[in-house]
Amino acid sequence: MQVTAIPTTPKEIRERIRGREIPGYTSGMAPGYVQANLVVLPKNLAFDFLLFCQRNPKPCPLIEVVETGSAEPLQTAPGADIRTDLPRYRVYEYGEMVAEPEDISEYWRDDMVSFLIGCSYSFESALIRAGISLPHFEKGTNVSMFITSIETTPAGVFAGPMVVSMRAIPEDKVVKAVQVTSRFPAVHGAPVQIGNPEVIGVSDPTVPDLGDPTEFNDGDVPVFWACGVTPQAVAMQSKPPLMITHSPGHMFITDLRDEDVAVL
Amino acid sequence: MQVTAIPTTPKEIRERIRGREIPGYTSGMAPGYVQANLVVLPKNLAFDFLLFCQRNPKPCPLIEVVETGSAEPLQTAPGADIRTDLPRYRVYEYGEMVAEPEDISEYWRDDMVSFLIGCSYSFESALIRAGISLPHFEKGTNVSMFITSIETTPAGVFAGPMVVSMRAIPEDKVVKAVQVTSRFPAVHGAPVQIGNPEVIGVSDPTVPDLGDPTEFNDGDVPVFWACGVTPQAVAMQSKPPLMITHSPGHMFITDLRDEDVAVL
Repeated sequence: MQVTAIPTTPKEIRERIRGREIPGYTSGMAPGYVQANLVVLPKNLAFDFLLFCQRNPKPCPLIEVVETGSAEPLQTAPGADIRTDLPRYRVYEYGEMVAEPEDISEYWRDDMVSFLIGCSYSFESALIRAGISLPHFEKGTNVSMFITSIETTPAGVFAGPMVVSMRAIPEDKVVKAVQVTSRFPAVHGAPVQIGNPEVIGVSDPTVPDLGDPTEFNDGDVPVFWACGVTPQAVAMQSKPPLMITHSPGHMFITDLRDEDVAVL
Repeated sequence: MQVTAIPTTPKEIRERIRGREIPGYTSGMAPGYVQANLVVLPKNLAFDFLLFCQRNPKPCPLIEVVETGSAEPLQTAPGADIRTDLPRYRVYEYGEMVAEPEDISEYWRDDMVSFLIGCSYSFESALIRAGISLPHFEKGTNVSMFITSIETTPAGVFAGPMVVSMRAIPEDKVVKAVQVTSRFPAVHGAPVQIGNPEVIGVSDPTVPDLGDPTEFNDGDVPVFWACGVTPQAVAMQSKPPLMITHSPGHMFITDLRDEDVAVL
């Protein structure tokens, strides 16, 4: 039996995902490359959603918006196909999930606009490189997420509360965590809150609204970052006739290196 | 005769511009506050133009996109009116300038979308604070601008070459100039080229395509930044039935401080 070499470039990984050779979560694949959340909406909602992202760059940092009707992200992954190159998708009709397929070709329409939105994997890698341990990242559990009292800036039909992710950071690493993530505005950037959960409407940082609970060690400070679940939740609220997203954890792997989207 | 105090806040200045008490160029007004280029387009072109700006953030850094039909920039200047609060406008019909009025109320339509785009005044102030003299800024002449061989990333109907502005920087200040402007991506950010004009299709940096010529001193290096003339030129190319912009040098003064749009 022939052993295939472990693919290392984003292009190779996307091709093997397309060929159904690699199923499952993309976390840890193509380390050093930017992974993205996917939101696909009909053109008649695309202006409002693009404007929503422009007005809310922390929860909705746009990596690329693909030309209407096209499935090829020319800027960040030329040659890729949005419809086949993610391991799993979710298809929503009028706000209800109707399928969770491995391929969305049959759902594709010529009026669809695909939005690739930054994902926290890039800044989590940077935190780990900076010596800040992230147990959920190592254990393969989900980060804790909270629906906050922070209102996003509305745009057209889109509005709603900001969702944040939380990490327990040792007190002496909090400044470093701010510095490291500030370099990556394209993947949510600097935190939105440090150490005072109630200020953003979070009553208990050990009981998340979404994802898994986080264990706190003595001296750990809860630090909150804007989360890419926000745009999905907000888009869903408009109950579009058709909306397609990645399935949680099954991201789109771009050709961009983390450093390509870093500032300074 | 009563002497009115010199207005200092952006709001006071906008009100006096609205009352036709302050005509002329806005350069030097409300120092420390962000001024913006204005592009107003019909809604049917707004998605493509918003996408063009998203894909070309260096020449087209969006400060705010106002809700369709509204003239009030809620995020950056609540209470202001886009139609009256700039000293002078240009009105284009099908790509031809038909008027250069002080007020655009009579041209306004319910389907207009207003784009406020960062302007280099903010980073020029930062350069001057960093000890880099800018003779055109002091003399009140126009910065030198060049149409380059750099193609912008097209979006829908919009495409075209990037326009850049050039400043002559003493050799020992070039690194500082990069550092200072890198902090301000919302107003064009870091340079696009340093010291090799021919690489971007500029044959002679002393002969600009637009604006006034720049005097070079011994050891000065030509440094090029993406310019806000790019989005206007690109928008014009689509010959929309109606398009309104600020008149050159007659900018919109926002409530944002330069530091509000700085990174790190």
